[in-house]
Order: sequence, then C-alpha cells, then structure tokens
Amino acid sequence: MDAPAIYRIALDVMGGDNAPVALLEGARAALQAHPELFLHLVGDEDRLRPLLAHTGLKGELASRFAIVHAASVVDMDDKATSILKEKKDSSIRVAAQLVREGKADGVVSMGHTGAAMVASKMVLGTLSGVDRPCLAAILPNMQGRPTVLLDVGANIDCRPDQIAQFAIMGSIYAEGVLGIPGPRVGVLSVGEEEGKGSTTTREAAEALKDIDLNFAGNAEGRDIWNGKFDVIACDGFVGNALLKSAEALAEGLVQGMKGVFKENLLTKLAALLTLNGLKRFAARLDYAEYGGAPLLGVKGVSIIGHGRSNAKAVHSAIRAALMASEHRVNDQIQASLGRLMSQAGSQETS
Amino acid sequence: MDAPAIYRIALDVMGGDNAPVALLEGARAALQAHPELFLHLVGDEDRLRPLLAHTGLKGELASRFAIVHAASVVDMDDKATSILKEKKDSSIRVAAQLVREGKADGVVSMGHTGAAMVASKMVLGTLSGVDRPCLAAILPNMQGRPTVLLDVGANIDCRPDQIAQFAIMGSIYAEGVLGIPGPRVGVLSVGEEEGKGSTTTREAAEALKDIDLNFAGNAEGRDIWNGKFDVIACDGFVGNALLKSAEALAEGLVQGMKGVFKENLLTKLAALLTLNGLKRFAARLDYAEYGGAPLLGVKGVSIIGHGRSNAKAVHSAIRAALMASEHRVNDQIQASLGRLMSQAGSQETS
Repeated sequence: MDAPAIYRIALDVMGGDNAPVALLEGARAALQAHPELFLHLVGDEDRLRPLLAHTGLKGELASRFAIVHAASVVDMDDKATSILKEKKDSSIRVAAQLVREGKADGVVSMGHTGAAMVASKMVLGTLSGVDRPCLAAILPNMQGRPTVLLDVGANIDCRPDQIAQFAIMGSIYAEGVLGIPGPRVGVLSVGEEEGKGSTTTREAAEALKDIDLNFAGNAEGRDIWNGKFDVIACDGFVGNALLKSAEALAEGLVQGMKGVFKENLLTKLAALLTLNGLKRFAARLDYAEYGGAPLLGVKGVSIIGHGRSNAKAVHSAIRAALMASEHRVNDQIQASLGRLMSQAGSQETS
Repeated sequence: MDAPAIYRIALDVMGGDNAPVALLEGARAALQAHPELFLHLVGDEDRLRPLLAHTGLKGELASRFAIVHAASVVDMDDKATSILKEKKDSSIRVAAQLVREGKADGVVSMGHTGAAMVASKMVLGTLSGVDRPCLAAILPNMQGRPTVLLDVGANIDCRPDQIAQFAIMGSIYAEGVLGIPGPRVGVLSVGEEEGKGSTTTREAAEALKDIDLNFAGNAEGRDIWNGKFDVIACDGFVGNALLKSAEALAEGLVQGMKGVFKENLLTKLAALLTLNGLKRFAARLDYAEYGGAPLLGVKGVSIIGHGRSNAKAVHSAIRAALMASEHRVNDQIQASLGRLMSQAGSQETS
C-alpha cells in the first residue's frame, strides 16, 4: 500500500515585481496541472486571503494549499543579508525555514535574488559533499531547447574542483528536471581545443574527463546559444557577466525591433502580418518556459525566478521545484559527488 | 615649411573571408576618403595586379599605394604561431614587418585573428611601460555609440594592474580614435557597488581611482550595451566569452527574425514595409562602422578585423589605423603608463 506521493513546495508569494497576484495565479495553474503538489503560500495573510478567490484558489484546490503568514518582505533596496537580522520574518526566510524544518521539500521565490540565495544557503545549508552551492541559469538556445549555464553569480572566485562540481550538478539537473538524456557537458573556455583556457578551466576540464558524465570538452561563449552543449560550467563572475550581458543585448534588440514596427501605419501593418511568426519565434526563446534558476547544492530544492516573472514563469518555477523533488536531484548530487570524492581519495592514497 | 603629413598603413590584402576583392575595394574607398593615406597592399603580387583596375585602384590613386609581395597566407587551419616558422613569408607577417622596419605606421588585417595577434606582439613588440598588449572590441551599443570592451582574448589570466592598464589604453583609444571626449571608464564586475567583484577587479578599480581618468566605477555585463560606459576593462577570458556569446546571440536573433519575414507572401510584404526602419536600426548596430579591434600596447598600430569584413569594414579599419597614427595614441599610452609607474614608484619609496 504505497502512500500517494505528495510534494510540498513553499512559495514566497510576496517577492517579485508582479507580487502577489502573478504569484497566486501561477500557484493556481501549478495546482491544477500537478495533482501531486501541495503549496505553502508564504506572505502577509491579511493581504493574501482576499485575493484567493479572485485568483482561482478556491473550490477543490483549497485542500492543497495553505497560507503561512510572514510579516515582512525583502525590498529591492534591502541588503541580501537583511534576512539574517532585520528581516527574519520576511516571506523568503519563512519559506526557507519550512524546508529546513522538513515541512516543505522546496522553496520558490521571485523576489530579491541575493536574499533568496542567502536564505537558501544559510537557512537550508549545503549538501554533504558539495563545496559551494551555485546558481544555474536555464537559457533558451536557438534550437528551442534549454542550455544550463552555471554558476551565474553565487560564487566569484572559484577553484577548478568547484567548477567541476558545478558541471556535475548541472548535468544531474538537466537530466532530472529538464528531461535531457545524457546531457552534453562543457567547461567554458576561450577555445574549443583541449588545453585552451585558464589554469582553472584546464584543471576543471581535466577533472571531468575521467568521471561518469557526458563530458564534451571546452565550450565557448557562442555555445551558450547554439545548442552544442546542454550544460556549460564556469565561475560565477564570468557566468554573471554573461547572463547580464545577454539579457541586456536581447532586450535591446527586441526593443529596437519594436521601435521599427511602431514607426508608422505601414510598419504597424507589417507587425500584424508577422504577428504569428513573431509569437512562435518568441515562444522558442521564452525564459518563462523554464521558470527560474535553481540554486544547486543546498539541502532541499531552491528555485529563484526573475523579478519580472509572470504567472506562467511562476508555474514553471513551481514545476521545476516539483520535478527536482520527484527526481531526487539532491540525492543524485550527493551520490555523484560522494563517488567523486572517494575516487579522489583512493587516487591520492594509491 | 611643414612637410605634408602622410601616414602609411600596411594592409594584409589576403586575409579574411572576402579577400582579396573586399580588401582592395576597402583600400580604394579609404584612399579616396583620406588624402593623407598611403597604403602598402601586402599579398600575392601575381594575383593582385590583375584586380587593381577592376577594384578602382588606378588613375590618380596609383601614386598612393604599392603592392608588397608576400608568398603565402595564414589559413584558418594554421596555428597562430605558424607565422614564426612555416609561414614567415605570409601576408600578415610581411605586413607587420613593414611596421617593424619603420616603413609603415600601422598594420591592418582581417585574416586569422590569432596569427595577427602573434605577428603584432612578436614582430612589433610591446610598448615600453605596457605589461601586456590587449585586444579591444569596439561594440555598437543601444545608444548608437561605440563601447570599447577590452581585453577580449589576448590575455587569459590577468593581474589587477594589467586590467588597469587595459582601462587606460582603452580610454586613450576611445578619445583619440573614436572621438569620445573624457570617456567614462569602468571595470567589469558583478555589481555596481564599490567593493563588489573578485579580488582582481576590486584591486584594478582601486588602482584606477587615483589617476587622471574619468573612472566611473564598476560596470556590469548589461553596461556593455546600454551606453552607460564608454570603456569597460576585464581580463581576456571574460571578454572573449562575452564577445563570442554576444555575437552568437545577436546573430541568432537576427536569423530568427529573418526566418519570420520569409514565412509567406504576407510576411515578405511586411519585410518590405519595415525595410527602411530595419536598415536604420541595423545601421546603428553595424560593427562595420568601427572596422576592427585594435591590439593596444604594441609598437606601431595594429587593427584586427573580423574575417567576414566587407569593403566598408575594411575602410573603417584602415581609417581607425590612420586616426590612431595621427592622434599618436601610442605616444599617449606610453606617457600615461609612464606617469602611472612613476607614481607607483614614488608611493612605494615614500
């Protein structure tokens, strides 16, 4: 008599530009799509309760969510570390606390990225065998598939073995959550050829060659977008710069195109004529499909979404947290990194 | 009785995807636009001579260029270091040699980037006071102006003082060649706030605060595109990854848009209706406007263009070499870095 599998996700309903409504709408969509989901909606109870019916959180869904009160929210002006002192009662901290206490399997937040990282690292703690948790961006590539780029900002100066760990964690996530069988894993470098790169990346690549992983060698900046790799590992400094550059460039190009279409009546007609094609192209590149960046290597699942997330992105982020829980991504990470460490240990002693 | 100022640029006519015709056409346009220019056209004389009249290199222009024979070309499959041994007679090496021998002020190449870098570094040598030459990408930002990103691949692991030197060289180039008065200079980091970043970038920023430069603090990845900075310095690993990522992302987005316009008759009509606007937008972002990446810090001027350069990009690259010569960019670099070193020296001894 198997117990029905229920996975419990704590959603910080107060974080993000469109909070709380887009968060509640995303929650509703996720509950409807995933019968195995239970949601803790963490936020200001007085503010949330009147919005529930309005956002469809009613009827038979009512038994599958609960409001957990949190008195404050981390604002964009607050420091990431404010959750440790001034804002202990913030929604992101309370949500993380639910995971720590075993009341939830994962936490999802669209609020202050730094605060969500601090909450996940300090409240949840680091998985055994993991040297440093890292943030993975799930980027849409030109093949219409996701490329996992990690670390994108949790760690600045990284050692080779840490970058190798990022690659392993990214590979497990890509397979378990994104459904990519045998993900092709690369280390970001400045040339495809073996031996190119910095001392750090060469050693990271060397460490990955001998382990049970589909290691495909050095990746270059262009490979983030062409679909040649499924997972690309780098230090958090490079990853953060790449992510912010790409966001700004893509947004600038899209804004420029929109400007062209708005010039006059004829160009507005042109916009109408291309609308379907533009929508299809945009859908292939829609980050909302993937919902958020997992912070990998912490105890419990943590998905950190973009502040601008809409309901669809919230739903996708919750789905990602659910799948990471179901596929036991953390158990796999612990097992893989444990094997790696025992290999390294036996090599050292042999 | 001032002697008329004549600047002599050695053009590797054999390098690049569109060589030699686009190179010769660009040469002709540059000669027509700049009466102070003399060009050494370096390449296979037998192949070039029949193309001269065809590309307009005739008539009164004939007194302002000369063919300098080079027996071979560095192919894309060759190693960058092939110019030191197997391909000593290659067009890029012969062109660099002209600068070394004082017969030319600068060298321009659209061929093998690595070979052009090796030729410039090994044949020309490094300017006194410069620790390491660096490659600067001139990128079109969303304000329709150039942003100088450097280093984009000449150096992999960099010290803070080297990144500070890149910033100074980039600032001098931006002012002298791109005509930006008092360029706003930043060090690439992972947050705007002072103190954010790696140990290396924090120290580089610290070094730049006290010198005669319009230092505007930490830049982030997004600032490459928003026009907030004119010059952004980083190590060559990060810069190379950023450049290759941006090229691939922009190309992917443009290809995707082209695909949308080609879908059917109505979308082809839409393309026609937006043609002028698209052209204006594309012109703002046209890298051909800036022509190539200067390798800063070598003795003599070296401009390295994209392999895909068309005649316009060749013309722009020659113009950049001409302006760097006219504005004595190298003298300024030597003077600035000399001052910096003597300051550092007096601080150490005080």
